[in-house]
Amino acid sequence: MTAPRNQAQEARTGPALPDTQQGMRRRNLARVMHTVSSEGPLSRAAVASHIGLTRAAVSTLVDELTRAGLLDELGPERPGRVGRPGSALAVSAHGPAGIGAEVGVDHLAACVVDLRGQVRARAVRYGGNRGRSPGPVVEQLTGLVRRVVAEAEREGLWAAGLAVAVPGLVARDARTVVRAPNLDWHDADLGALLPVGVPLTVDNEANFGALAELWLGDGMPPDFLHVSAEIGIGAGVVVDGRLLRGTRGFAGELGHVPVFPDGPECACGGRGCLEQYAGEEAVLRAAGLAAGEGRVDLLAERAEAGDRDARRALHDAGTALGIALTGAVNLLDPQTVVLGGALAGLAPWLLPPLRDELTRRTAGPACPVSVSALGPRGPLLGAAHSVVRAVLDDPMAVAERP
Amino acid sequence: MTAPRNQAQEARTGPALPDTQQGMRRRNLARVMHTVSSEGPLSRAAVASHIGLTRAAVSTLVDELTRAGLLDELGPERPGRVGRPGSALAVSAHGPAGIGAEVGVDHLAACVVDLRGQVRARAVRYGGNRGRSPGPVVEQLTGLVRRVVAEAEREGLWAAGLAVAVPGLVARDARTVVRAPNLDWHDADLGALLPVGVPLTVDNEANFGALAELWLGDGMPPDFLHVSAEIGIGAGVVVDGRLLRGTRGFAGELGHVPVFPDGPECACGGRGCLEQYAGEEAVLRAAGLAAGEGRVDLLAERAEAGDRDARRALHDAGTALGIALTGAVNLLDPQTVVLGGALAGLAPWLLPPLRDELTRRTAGPACPVSVSALGPRGPLLGAAHSVVRAVLDDPMAVAERP
Repeated sequence: MTAPRNQAQEARTGPALPDTQQGMRRRNLARVMHTVSSEGPLSRAAVASHIGLTRAAVSTLVDELTRAGLLDELGPERPGRVGRPGSALAVSAHGPAGIGAEVGVDHLAACVVDLRGQVRARAVRYGGNRGRSPGPVVEQLTGLVRRVVAEAEREGLWAAGLAVAVPGLVARDARTVVRAPNLDWHDADLGALLPVGVPLTVDNEANFGALAELWLGDGMPPDFLHVSAEIGIGAGVVVDGRLLRGTRGFAGELGHVPVFPDGPECACGGRGCLEQYAGEEAVLRAAGLAAGEGRVDLLAERAEAGDRDARRALHDAGTALGIALTGAVNLLDPQTVVLGGALAGLAPWLLPPLRDELTRRTAGPACPVSVSALGPRGPLLGAAHSVVRAVLDDPMAVAERP
Repeated sequence: MTAPRNQAQEARTGPALPDTQQGMRRRNLARVMHTVSSEGPLSRAAVASHIGLTRAAVSTLVDELTRAGLLDELGPERPGRVGRPGSALAVSAHGPAGIGAEVGVDHLAACVVDLRGQVRARAVRYGGNRGRSPGPVVEQLTGLVRRVVAEAEREGLWAAGLAVAVPGLVARDARTVVRAPNLDWHDADLGALLPVGVPLTVDNEANFGALAELWLGDGMPPDFLHVSAEIGIGAGVVVDGRLLRGTRGFAGELGHVPVFPDGPECACGGRGCLEQYAGEEAVLRAAGLAAGEGRVDLLAERAEAGDRDARRALHDAGTALGIALTGAVNLLDPQTVVLGGALAGLAPWLLPPLRDELTRRTAGPACPVSVSALGPRGPLLGAAHSVVRAVLDDPMAVAERP
């Protein structure tokens, strides 16, 4: 590899903030948490060597985190080492936890993930939400959240925040669902509807799916495109390990990229959008199936059994996905594309035509496409983990909360 | 405006680097330089208030920058102010300067920009470069660079770095032109060909055009898409004030986004790419004109005069641009799209059909599209300014150079 470009060269000079000792301390506390989280259990000396600070400096930081209940001492290490025996450190399994929740078109779900990344409680409720108004849906979701939080509290955990995945466009305020066509929601302020006393973040399910892939996927690179579908098709664009959100928070609308510009009309106002060829309803219709719960599984079964309509529908969907992704790959040059959500289960039939298009339409080697191991669990896990990451990123902000 | 999301929440933990006093000092020196550059002339007290450090701390930083010849003292301010009269500071007009160079399909150019952003020397050489091998082209370019550097040195400036804009894909090593179809260059290592004793950066002309827009454009937001054309069509994707480069450095290849997937074959291996409808050669052909130097001006003249073939060709190009940009806007959600390069001069005929497509195909208000005031000067200016920005971003790295 050659030397990377100087990224700072391109940074804007926004409002110039001073570097303060206080800011440095907070960043170093975060480094300790992230290091113990990803590499632990570790001794203080090992933490110091990982982050390049003196052992004395690290001890001060560790003491602060231990007092706040964010790090656990696992007891003395085995003897036989040189010097004073150190105590191995791990992030706490009994402190703050992330609460994830999901509004699906056909289900609701909630879960609790502790600082170690373990799912400690989970609840799901099946039933269609299309056309229901936000109030009653959020009320049911709140019931699920309360249930998993109560379960977690019995194990000594407490909710550090709640993140909700929704199948729609979310404003950058991270609480207002601007448009969720498959629920028929418009400008729904979930912040006002969710009576929770913890920090709340609402985000698009494709975004949380992409973040789950970034944080939990096996060896994911820092630049990738995560394509997922529940009913609509969305993408999460990850660049340098960060999600690209766009000015209004609406980036990643792969489902409305024109594929055949003179094709059928789309609810977005366009024509021939990807969703008209590879969206769940379009694919089911092309395969001769009515829309509804469990129909994607049925479609997969039929394709598996060799049903020609099912296979043709999936082939055409894969072709459309390949054309739209050719455009996306040309614009973004990601290291890889990952198919997640419901698309993961249909990958055996979508991938061959999709890869054909990408290869045919690319001068050099085509961008590799893989399938998410998280599949439909991605958005809910991504939501809960986003809260956990926020704790690791600024541990004292949580510790200082009343 | 609502509170932005916690971006750090999504940052990867990569190799954890410690915050050091030395790093803090370098960042604060950069803050002083940027503040004086964008707001100056300023007194030490004004700089301190802008960047939120004490006056004593700022004085130490300013003394260091003045000694290094990066800041100039303009002499005492007018009397009548409270306290000891301060001396106004400005960035030096006689210190390091940025050298920009450009390899065009039909011309070569070089210029010198001082730390104040003023163009201090410029040289251009017209003549076709298509099909010429990189060696002789770079030799001529080196001649132009030497000429402008000599001119700048007579005014007390010295070259802090050289940045070269090329119409092709550049590897992330920032020196190898991987593919420049309109020059017929492949894997040309310009670093080996350019015998300059200063840091060298080679980049795609669309990237430098976008950076010029970011740095010099009037009130540009931090998220935009800059579309430019010389012979090919490229885009610079700017996100949060930074250029999105992609894994291999190939991001922004808008010219190869499929517009009509069954359309004519493209040199990239695809079919119906944007370049087949809106690239210079395609538009000239559609208007009944042969390709060649000055033909874009001729096309504009004919369209101005009401020539039907010229107008139809530009209308079709604008429509294709609108379809490709609909996809790009759905993926990236930029605040605005800017037409630069040669496209800027054709905007009167391209913009109406382009805006029609964007509006028809968008559910909410369509993304605004404007025209670059820099036009074809963008890439060369962006190249030279990228060196100037690098000096402002890490002034002591330049000052400490032998």
